Amino acid sequence: MSEGARISQLAGLLAFDAPGIELGIGDDAAVLTSGPNGDRKLVWTIDEQVEEVHFRRDFLSWSDVGWRSYVAAASDVAAMGAVPWCALSAIVLPSDVSDQDLGEIGCGQRDAAMALGAPIIGGNLSRGRSLTIATAVLGTCVRAVRRVGACDGDGLWLAGSVGIARAGLEALLRGLGEQTRLAPALAAWRRPRPYIAEAVAMGPSAHAAIDVSDGLACDVGHMASASGVRIVIEEAALLADPVLCDVADALGQRASDLALYGGEDYAIVIASDVDVAGFRRIGSVRVGSGVALASCDGLRELEPKGFDHFG
Amino acid sequence: MSEGARISQLAGLLAFDAPGIELGIGDDAAVLTSGPNGDRKLVWTIDEQVEEVHFRRDFLSWSDVGWRSYVAAASDVAAMGAVPWCALSAIVLPSDVSDQDLGEIGCGQRDAAMALGAPIIGGNLSRGRSLTIATAVLGTCVRAVRRVGACDGDGLWLAGSVGIARAGLEALLRGLGEQTRLAPALAAWRRPRPYIAEAVAMGPSAHAAIDVSDGLACDVGHMASASGVRIVIEEAALLADPVLCDVADALGQRASDLALYGGEDYAIVIASDVDVAGFRRIGSVRVGSGVALASCDGLRELEPKGFDHFG
Repeated sequence: MSEGARISQLAGLLAFDAPGIELGIGDDAAVLTSGPNGDRKLVWTIDEQVEEVHFRRDFLSWSDVGWRSYVAAASDVAAMGAVPWCALSAIVLPSDVSDQDLGEIGCGQRDAAMALGAPIIGGNLSRGRSLTIATAVLGTCVRAVRRVGACDGDGLWLAGSVGIARAGLEALLRGLGEQTRLAPALAAWRRPRPYIAEAVAMGPSAHAAIDVSDGLACDVGHMASASGVRIVIEEAALLADPVLCDVADALGQRASDLALYGGEDYAIVIASDVDVAGFRRIGSVRVGSGVALASCDGLRELEPKGFDHFG
Repeated sequence: MSEGARISQLAGLLAFDAPGIELGIGDDAAVLTSGPNGDRKLVWTIDEQVEEVHFRRDFLSWSDVGWRSYVAAASDVAAMGAVPWCALSAIVLPSDVSDQDLGEIGCGQRDAAMALGAPIIGGNLSRGRSLTIATAVLGTCVRAVRRVGACDGDGLWLAGSVGIARAGLEALLRGLGEQTRLAPALAAWRRPRPYIAEAVAMGPSAHAAIDVSDGLACDVGHMASASGVRIVIEEAALLADPVLCDVADALGQRASDLALYGGEDYAIVIASDVDVAGFRRIGSVRVGSGVALASCDGLRELEPKGFDHFG
């Protein structure tokens, strides 16, 4: 299939209407009226998923590859308290990814786009050695919530689960993908959930926010250092997640290690002095620096380790 | 160097102020006030440059790689009559590209950003097997000029040169890069010029526009089929470019073939019924379909061939 035919195939799959989009796939660029609501801010990010770095094709379907690539990118927009508006997708295709495979990637992207309410309105296709999907996402918000802003006395709150996606990847790496108890973990890694309603809910009141892509200890560490505060995570709050405890048990791993160091759940963590719908409290913000875990054994400083592409 | 250190290095290189940018590199996403001018439209594109597909590292400097990747993407924004506002850059780095090399890529991106007046305000770094740079560019305009809209009776107008970049690539492929006569061709391929003033000038009056990335015959063919018209290119007008004729002569190639089928100059072609500053007339729009070349031998139909990644 020619480049033009492939683009037409994807355009047919991906097109749907959304406010403020004047022109989608098919010209040199997409055209947007400036913001679906006049007074809003734009929040803009790009994320890239690379085969053999972010995923292995024997671990998930092509449609999962498409879903993950979009939800991972949209998560950075949600983590600013913004709602995804639309996206562009640039795909590098190796010759062993067929037209049908590309169609399935597009189906996964479209499923994510429908779940996010934000269509993919343009992109680029290129040949290359490794399958690579770069997704640029525009979102809108009234107020952008940054990593900086957490204050002494704030609570630390979590929307979603942490550690379960990592348990899913572990299960796949160890060939345990067929175990029924691990099914929620596989689903969490293959099809991470977007947290858009939670992003909207936290917008007005959160002092700081970040999404958990590299691991809770690492990402909360970014918030602590950006805000110039110390953050204490309660182990008991992490262990209050029955799915996490069950998949950890099935793998013979410590649930708190999975929760602290497992990435790719794309949960959202905020610092706030009020309760926010969809979030549960998992710790507190204090004067000082660093990140610590509070358990029945006392306080333990956490290394801000997580996934570093260049570590 | 860690991922964080690499991002800091690039952030230091790439940051500069521009209107409407509230938050740049360093958080989950960039934050923009919606349009630097309230009433404008947003024009949005993504382009990707892949090593061994779009460039060979022995053919240009790292800084050229950075420049080209940004200007190629910005060209799609200019081709809609829009002015680049800001950009995001996602880079996949193989292990044999050093920190210093990455810094030079960043310098080239920054040089292009300064030339375009549009800073790079965020991005993503990932490991991978092939050096790949995806650039997403947001631009603004009052009116977006599309490929559809060319009318019978319009003139076909060109800003910039065509065929010269391809001559530069040919020179490099044949090991003729040292020939003084070919220096303008090498420069055209390595450091394509952005045509922003011309994009602004054509905005109010152009009926249709496209940038020449794959080759004049191919890209004008896109305009003809989108607009439902026939376009006739005048060979004499193409040959009125003395640099093109000189580099074609140095290579022993037909200048009109280079002009019709050579890509990557990122010139802009428009259909318009009035003269536009910065553009010269190279043909006309008629009733019918297809693209033809008018020469002293008569009319010759052109195949819409050009660079197809999947052809």
